[in-house]
Amino acid sequence: MLFSAEEYEQRLAAVRRRMRDQGLSGLIVTDPANMFYLTGYNAWSFYTPQLLYVPASGPMTLFAREMDAHGAQRTCWLPEEDIVGYPERYVHRPHIHPFDWVAFALRQRWEVAPAAHGCIGVEMDSHYYSPRAHRALVHGIPEWTLVDSFELVNWIRAIKSPAEIAIMRQAAQVTTAAMNAALNAVEPGARQNDVAAAIAHAQAAGTAEVWGDFPAIVPMLPTGEGADTPHLTWTDRRLAAGEPVVIELAGAHHRYHVPLARTVMLGEPPAQLQHTADVVAEALNEVLETMRPDVPVAELARVWNAVLARHEMVKESRLGYSIGIGYPPDWGERTISLRSEDEQVLAAGMTFHVIAGMWLDGIGYEVSEPVAVTATGVERFTDFPQNLIRR
Amino acid sequence: MLFSAEEYEQRLAAVRRRMRDQGLSGLIVTDPANMFYLTGYNAWSFYTPQLLYVPASGPMTLFAREMDAHGAQRTCWLPEEDIVGYPERYVHRPHIHPFDWVAFALRQRWEVAPAAHGCIGVEMDSHYYSPRAHRALVHGIPEWTLVDSFELVNWIRAIKSPAEIAIMRQAAQVTTAAMNAALNAVEPGARQNDVAAAIAHAQAAGTAEVWGDFPAIVPMLPTGEGADTPHLTWTDRRLAAGEPVVIELAGAHHRYHVPLARTVMLGEPPAQLQHTADVVAEALNEVLETMRPDVPVAELARVWNAVLARHEMVKESRLGYSIGIGYPPDWGERTISLRSEDEQVLAAGMTFHVIAGMWLDGIGYEVSEPVAVTATGVERFTDFPQNLIRR
Repeated sequence: MLFSAEEYEQRLAAVRRRMRDQGLSGLIVTDPANMFYLTGYNAWSFYTPQLLYVPASGPMTLFAREMDAHGAQRTCWLPEEDIVGYPERYVHRPHIHPFDWVAFALRQRWEVAPAAHGCIGVEMDSHYYSPRAHRALVHGIPEWTLVDSFELVNWIRAIKSPAEIAIMRQAAQVTTAAMNAALNAVEPGARQNDVAAAIAHAQAAGTAEVWGDFPAIVPMLPTGEGADTPHLTWTDRRLAAGEPVVIELAGAHHRYHVPLARTVMLGEPPAQLQHTADVVAEALNEVLETMRPDVPVAELARVWNAVLARHEMVKESRLGYSIGIGYPPDWGERTISLRSEDEQVLAAGMTFHVIAGMWLDGIGYEVSEPVAVTATGVERFTDFPQNLIRR
Repeated sequence: MLFSAEEYEQRLAAVRRRMRDQGLSGLIVTDPANMFYLTGYNAWSFYTPQLLYVPASGPMTLFAREMDAHGAQRTCWLPEEDIVGYPERYVHRPHIHPFDWVAFALRQRWEVAPAAHGCIGVEMDSHYYSPRAHRALVHGIPEWTLVDSFELVNWIRAIKSPAEIAIMRQAAQVTTAAMNAALNAVEPGARQNDVAAAIAHAQAAGTAEVWGDFPAIVPMLPTGEGADTPHLTWTDRRLAAGEPVVIELAGAHHRYHVPLARTVMLGEPPAQLQHTADVVAEALNEVLETMRPDVPVAELARVWNAVLARHEMVKESRLGYSIGIGYPPDWGERTISLRSEDEQVLAAGMTFHVIAGMWLDGIGYEVSEPVAVTATGVERFTDFPQNLIRR
């Protein structure tokens, strides 16, 4: 087990407290990050439907494809009898769904009844829970009233334990190795895909002490004119002198992610880019200095915008987001966003990717800091210089 | 544009014919592979909701997050006015969804009315279409009756054009480079993650002529006892002499995938493993020799099972699946599966990953062939020996 039995018990207890607060007598978890958080189950099996049922009390049950359920105990700490495989013949069939079978199995395992159970939460916006999956449960267990859990487990994950922070510090070593590999590979004439190859190698190799786990998102290298599209993936386009190259990547360890972004200028930076970099570094540091427990997230956006306004600059997208466990397609936790609309307040143990992505006319600039909120401020997970890097 | 305007027109016409056959006067596409197929749009932006609306006639409309819509034309051939960005403030908010905004925008762009439009197809089981997204459309456009499109575009994708086959031949060069990198890295004492690093490097680097695109699934290395769990991802466990190591990976080029699996024996293979490998090679070749247009898919399963039965062996899971464009978490197309329940018939231009994964007591063995169905048989995309590889 990656974490102690006590820590898994605490996680489950926290989830159940929140279930009670939301009026839920059961919870259906389909997000692989949430399954990993509660049971340790970890495999690239989420492309076929999976489900963890969390009742108000008693053991949880994990449902997965038969071939995956068979060896699930290699990562999942649930006892064998609580890991159930659905038959292979339900996979990728047009008019039946694995959850038709799972609904029946749930009926058999739990005496489903409206009075005893009431509302059951489902993750209405998780990446691996489709409308067809939802419909199978709605029709297969009509006694249950399924309601949105509103990222219930994700919210519990927002505050990390010391053991989780320790793993993120290890992930940060992978991040550092991957960013160094990127900085070494970036040069005029290099193909983007060769830079990506160098990064991908370092992301898996990690260091002699810390192995690299697969990242939830591939390295992003917005370059030159394409920098106006932050999520464009690489091709064999060659980097050219005079271009800024944005590098956004993450190191991962045991599914915990520490993302990092830097911008490399191949040659002499245009005055506007250097000015942007200076302003962003100033604003980013004011934000980091403001971060501590009890500060509202909205205050960070205010501080950031105030510095930018002094220099007559603006940034419309969010300034960062909560990070931790990640599976494709995202290493964000889909909970706290650093922006003025967010009503959350910082607490010790929260971890964020504070990212300033600026898209100017034809030029992209990004710099970020992955941090943990401590009792008195923030701990930076990596220590790269925060300014424009020149090559 | 990656393909000719004529090819994109043919794809859209084929989709619209199938829409008519299924009684649909509109189609909502959310699977990034289907969006890429119809519009060329390609970015790692699918972690926030995206939608392509395909009316029965007239221009398609692509909706994406504002920061992604802004530069979407770098990959998408739709005219600028048909690419619409939804505001950043809709991203990852608990009680609103981007499709609340998109539903309103669709109402404005298209005169939604039940009489004129009738049923609109939605991809009820696509990975990036959540129940919350579906609910936003149901409530936002009550005039539309949304029905399952049953992988409508995926089915059109099942038969590849010559231009698509040509790209898959290029992807196969990446596959070959990646498999060779794996075979070089696998040795007793090597950490699994270092083998994965070598593979990941080759997958992106490709060759001097063909760049490697990111694969939809990370390399799988089921080894030793863990080989009973086909989708377990790597750790820093060291390979040991006497173990079989399964390698399953894909090369990708312009999002088209050619997957391949081989098993490497570190030392002298146990008699049972060598016997399994021999039987599987025999069965696999009988299957490949059977493949040609007009042969029912179920016949392949019958041939396969007959050879295994002669040797008193069985395999329960499917023998392969349709391949082509892939995004995480899957490089399969979720249409044709090579198994006895499948009612499809082979046709020229179909492409498959024919994969024999055998899980014996404590030992895993996998070997596969990626192939295209030709007018007279099959074309193998790669040419690795089909037997157990010794190191």
